[in-house]
This record gives sequence, C-alpha cells and structure tokens, in this order.
Amino acid sequence: MRVEVLCTGDELLTGLTVDTNSPYFMERLLPHGEQVVRTTVVGDVREEILEALQVTSARADVVLVSGGLGPTADDLTAECAAEAAGVPLVESAEALAALEARFARRGIVLTANNRRQARVPRGAEVVLNPNGSAPMFVLRLGRATLFFLPGVPREYRHLVEAEVLPRIQRLRGERKDATFLAFRLLRTVGLPESHLDAKVAPLFAEHPDVTFGFRTQAPENHLKLMARGATQAEADRALAAAETASRAILGSFVFGQDEERYPAVIARLLVARSETVSLAESCTGGRIADLLTSVPGASAWFPGGAVVYANAMKEAWLGVRKETLLAHGAVSEAVAREMAEGVRRATSSTWGLAVTGIAGPTGGTEEKPLGTVFTALAGPSMTSAQRHRFAGDREQVRTFSAAAALEVLRHALLAGGP
Amino acid sequence: MRVEVLCTGDELLTGLTVDTNSPYFMERLLPHGEQVVRTTVVGDVREEILEALQVTSARADVVLVSGGLGPTADDLTAECAAEAAGVPLVESAEALAALEARFARRGIVLTANNRRQARVPRGAEVVLNPNGSAPMFVLRLGRATLFFLPGVPREYRHLVEAEVLPRIQRLRGERKDATFLAFRLLRTVGLPESHLDAKVAPLFAEHPDVTFGFRTQAPENHLKLMARGATQAEADRALAAAETASRAILGSFVFGQDEERYPAVIARLLVARSETVSLAESCTGGRIADLLTSVPGASAWFPGGAVVYANAMKEAWLGVRKETLLAHGAVSEAVAREMAEGVRRATSSTWGLAVTGIAGPTGGTEEKPLGTVFTALAGPSMTSAQRHRFAGDREQVRTFSAAAALEVLRHALLAGGP
Repeated sequence: MRVEVLCTGDELLTGLTVDTNSPYFMERLLPHGEQVVRTTVVGDVREEILEALQVTSARADVVLVSGGLGPTADDLTAECAAEAAGVPLVESAEALAALEARFARRGIVLTANNRRQARVPRGAEVVLNPNGSAPMFVLRLGRATLFFLPGVPREYRHLVEAEVLPRIQRLRGERKDATFLAFRLLRTVGLPESHLDAKVAPLFAEHPDVTFGFRTQAPENHLKLMARGATQAEADRALAAAETASRAILGSFVFGQDEERYPAVIARLLVARSETVSLAESCTGGRIADLLTSVPGASAWFPGGAVVYANAMKEAWLGVRKETLLAHGAVSEAVAREMAEGVRRATSSTWGLAVTGIAGPTGGTEEKPLGTVFTALAGPSMTSAQRHRFAGDREQVRTFSAAAALEVLRHALLAGGP
Repeated sequence: MRVEVLCTGDELLTGLTVDTNSPYFMERLLPHGEQVVRTTVVGDVREEILEALQVTSARADVVLVSGGLGPTADDLTAECAAEAAGVPLVESAEALAALEARFARRGIVLTANNRRQARVPRGAEVVLNPNGSAPMFVLRLGRATLFFLPGVPREYRHLVEAEVLPRIQRLRGERKDATFLAFRLLRTVGLPESHLDAKVAPLFAEHPDVTFGFRTQAPENHLKLMARGATQAEADRALAAAETASRAILGSFVFGQDEERYPAVIARLLVARSETVSLAESCTGGRIADLLTSVPGASAWFPGGAVVYANAMKEAWLGVRKETLLAHGAVSEAVAREMAEGVRRATSSTWGLAVTGIAGPTGGTEEKPLGTVFTALAGPSMTSAQRHRFAGDREQVRTFSAAAALEVLRHALLAGGP
C-alpha cells in the first residue's frame, strides 16, 4: 500500500511550530507493516490544499490529512475536500449533536463558526472525536482512502490509535499484494557513519530482501534493517539473518537495539553486576552525570559526581595532588588518573570515571591542541587512561568526550562478562 | 517568490528522526521577507526523488533540497538531480581536492564511496562545505534555483546561513514585489504558553501590522513579533512599538532576545559583577552544571559543582549534617539550604545554588509527592529557599527544576542592579 501524509497549517511553514503529529503516525504505522512514502505540508491556502488533495489521492492508497478543521476562517480543509470530490458540504446530524452536547456540557454558546465544524463532504463517513469539537471524516477519492483529522496533537493521536490504524489494517487485509515487514535498529557508538556503512556494505548483496539504512544521532550512528517478505515469518527470517550477520561484523560497537538508550545500557550492566560508578568531570561539565541520572533508579548505582572546573576543587573533592597539577597541568593523563582514583575513593564506588580536556574555543597549546581530552577509569584492580583528540566546536568536543568516557566504562563492564 | 523545501531520507518517514532542518530554514528565511509555501519529504527512492525534483522545480522559484548527499548506496540525490536536469554527473576537481585535504587532515583513507561525494550534475555551481565531506551545489532547473545541501544539521545550518540565505536575498533583490519585514524574538521562562498568549493578546488589535507568534522550547516560551511595512523603516517602527508594549507587560519574564541563550545571560550577569556560582545538584543530576559549562570561558565564574545522589556525598562534599538528613529527609528545605551553603563554602564562590527533589517515576509520598523540588540559593548576605511542584515525567521535572533554580539565581543577580 502507498501511504502518504498531508499536513495543512501556516504555522507549520514558519518553523515556529514543529509537526510532531506526522512522526507519531509514522512510528505507529511501522508495526502494521506499512511505511509512509511521502509527506507534504501546505499552508492555509485554498489552491495549495486542493491541489495537494488531488495529487495525493490520485497516487496513494491511503492519505492521512490533518489540520484545518477548526472553526475559523483559515480552516479550509473540509471545503477543499468537498471540492476535490465534486460534492457539496453537508451538515452531519451526528456531528452537530455531538458538538451541541459538548458545548452544553461546558456551558458555552455554540456560535455559527463552531457549527461549521459539523459540516463534512457529502458521502463522507463521520467519526466522532471524543477530545475535541472537530469530527474526523473518511472520504474515498481517486484510488485513495483519505482520513481527515484535526491537528491538535491530543485529538490526532487518539484518533490515529482508535480509528485510523484499525481501518488501515482492514484495508491492508483486503489486498492480495501485501508485503510484510520486520525492523531492527542497531545502535553503535565510536564508529563514524562512513565506516559503519563500509563495514556492512558487503552484506547488501547477500540480503536482497533487507534494506540497510543509516542514521546519525551524534555521538551515535545507527544501522536500520528493514526486511520484506510474503509472510510475516519470511520477513522475520530475513531480518534475523541480516541482523546476525551485521552483529558479527560490528561486534561490541553495537551497544543496544531499537529503543534502547545508551545510559540505560550502562545502568543494566551495572545493576547486573551489583556495581556502582562515580564521576569526576572537567571539560564535560556534568554532561555525563546528566546522561546517567536520566535513567530512573540511578541512585542504586550512582552515588555522585564532581564537576571540577577549578584546580582547587580537584584537590578538595577528589584529592588530586597539587604537585601533579603543577607538574603535568590539569589536562593530563596523570591528573585524569588521580581524578578517577579520587572520586572512586571519595564515593566508595566500584568504578571511578574521569574526564579532563580542552573543549575550546580557546586554551589549546602546541603540545595539547584544542580537542585534546584524557579519560581515566579506576576500577577494583587497576586504573587505565586514554588520550583522545576530537574535532569540532565546544559542544561537539563535550559530546564526544562524554561518549568516549562512557565507552571505556562499558567495555570494562562487558569484559567482566555479560 | 515561491520557496519550497524538499527533504530526502527514509529515516524522516519512519518517525525515528524528526526533521529539524526545515523548521530552522523556515525561521531563518522569515527575516528575509519570504515564507516557505510547501514542504515535501520523500524517502531514499529514486523515482520519488526524481518526480519531486521535477514537480517542485516546475512551480517554485527556489527549492531547498536536503539529504541524500552522503557516501552510501542510499544517497541518491545528486544522481536524481543530474537526471532531472538531463546532464551527467561529473567529478568536481574543487570538491575532490577539498575532500582529499579533509581526509588527509584526519589521517583517514579516502574510499571510493567517499570519492562519490565529489560528483555533481554538470553545470552545477559547487559550494564547499567546511564542516563535512559532501559539498553543496546549486542548479537552475525549470523556473527554479535549487540548492542541494547535506542533511547533517550542523553542515546544513552553516550552509543555510553562509550560502543559501545570501543567494536568496540576491534573487529577491532582482524582483519588484517585495514587502519589508522586521523581527524580534522575546525569550521568556517561568510563564506557561497559555499565560504568555493571554498576557499579550490585548496588544494584537493595537498593532495590526505585527503578527504575534508563540513557540515552546521547554522550559522556555518565546514570543515572536513579525512586523510588515512598505519600507524597512516602517516595518522597524511597527516592530519597536510592539516590542516596547510586550516588554512592558512581560517584565523580567523576558530573559533575552533573538539568539541570546539562557546560560549566556547568567554568564553575562556574573561577569558584569565579577561574581562566581557553584552548584549542588541532586535531582537535576548535573543538568545545571552542563548548561552553565556550555558557555565558553565558564571557568572564570564557575569553580565547580557537586552531583550528590547519595546522602553520604551530601555530607562528604557539602558538609550537610547527618542530623538534618535524618530529621527532614534528603528532599527538604533544610537540606537544600545546607547544600547551597555547603557548596558555596567548599568552593569559596559568591553564590551557592542547590536543588533536591523527587524526579520520579517512583519515590513520591503523600507529604512530598512526585515532582516536589526544593531549591536554595546561598549568597553573601543570606540564604533563600523555595518549594516547587512540577508536573510531568522524570525528564520534565528535571528540566523545570533546573530552570527554576537558575531563575532564582538570575533574579538575585538582577536585584543587585544591572
């Protein structure tokens, strides 16, 4: 099936309002084995809406149209739908009764403007909207079934779940040519996108029923596998084969799958081992602590962290020695080691993780240029330290420094066995 | 001028990746007196990209095309552009040289895949991309000028600012039908969007040449003023009147304007007073430290912060008394006060700012339900404390707790005079 999305609304074309409805629908549609193939956004302009309705209904099987069903003069969608279908707008007795009941419940007078919301193209199926005054309606036009929904996210989401997805499921059941889909997202970190691609490229030909896609969410890169089959079992088998092959190539660069987030993976590894981690952050400035404490229940494995910008605080909170700071400078392997060991000792945690570096935009030297970062991990048996060099601006250096430090921890946790 | 946006990328049609590029371009385009009239999103599918290029270039004056310029097999945009223009792809010597230099700088081998990125449709103008390996290119097709940009947000944004907007400005200068616009963004925090709207609504009628727009970027709400005039001076005058009236109503809820970010405002206030601030964070888990240290040069006014999840760390690093913890619990006004005073003392800073609360999803009690948060600010002459109650999930409670704590600090800094 070809599914398209059409959004109307001037506000979506100014950049001030971001369309969160379409991503919601897209994501909820995937498990039904269908994917949106095109999204169109037009303003509250009669000719644009009409043309978009005509074009999409001529080439799609399903069009989800949203917005422009309100009571005001710039709400034009129902009118345009009627014009596209060559039918008049008629007042739906059912929609009007629901509208009157809604206004009566709230003790508000129903204005002529509001009453407009009960008008739908003749022949359309009306679906009441329990969360708002504009009903949803369904219209057959060209080869397509068009679902018209209000753009208010709460109303839209409820109608997508309760009305649109079950109808798409039924339309799909009536077809002979349905393909079945299966998905897996493999999340990696530490591997540039082009390397990720190059590593898995040899698999493309061996897995013709699987599409390999890539997405970057700095510092992570994700591999998306989408498998097709004539039955769900076939799609699942094709996916499993491609996933196994991809994992064999990517190894421990893959930290999680699907909706699994990085901090939750660290949390799971620590909880499984009944271990704790503490942090000593300089250039990352609390970024790592913020990431880790985004996980509910972090207090079970995270006693605390010190954000030590001033050398005095490295000494006071972490016990870094003045001589080490003087001899090597705050951005050095020796200081990173003492920070990691110091925070581990201060918090009595299993692991102490430390970062110190030059995030910029100033502070670089010939010996330690901008982007030079030292990480250190103190554990029960030893302390390791790493030197890194990151390109980019302050924000990027901080992001990649945090990721690199956490990767040192994750690999140490993995090395101890799953 | 008719300006359209065309985005390519499967990931934009799964809902997993939200297109933040288009809203960025739309918003940056407005001050140039133009508005995007249509957005189209298609997947990494040759026929879809080609058809969309043909249709948009036939009806628009400007099309901003993004995505699909990467090194991988699903990057099809340059190929489709060449096909739409009826020309071959040719290797740009300039783009290849830049690509080689970029890879040499990083000590990475240039693969055949990467080399593909130097290929552009014959006749296209090549614009080097300082932040990535795919160059931008510009193509005339049908009535339209098409700008092709990589989809990576950092690369896209830089090219929009440095290359696309100036070119649109020039194209616009060649036309006669221009109206003049003037903009101001007033950034507020601490005011729900509906309150912001209700407060300024009485101004709408008095300022007919100004459009009042609203945008939410939790925890902030922004008021966007867009003024129109037959001359730039007229637009500027209408804007100044609306801005003055809005500021009179909103007072110190407005913390900044246009591109001014919250942490930079705090930094400016501290620097102006030669003062410093330190942090003691529990439920915000390093979020506030991360925000403040995003500002370059933060070390001048931020010695450090303690992220103290465990009570033992509140005692060890901040000197919170065991008796206070036992008598009042970690989430209490008394502990917030001792945290603020303790971190101020430990760091010898002008201000000590503390947060302790229940971010959820568990841990609430009848007396202290989920979302209960205490903030405290210790200063040279006194310590103040505040009790808050935030609705929402863990992430929202953390976001609004951080904002509330920083607002306490900002108002204290403002009270001391500008």
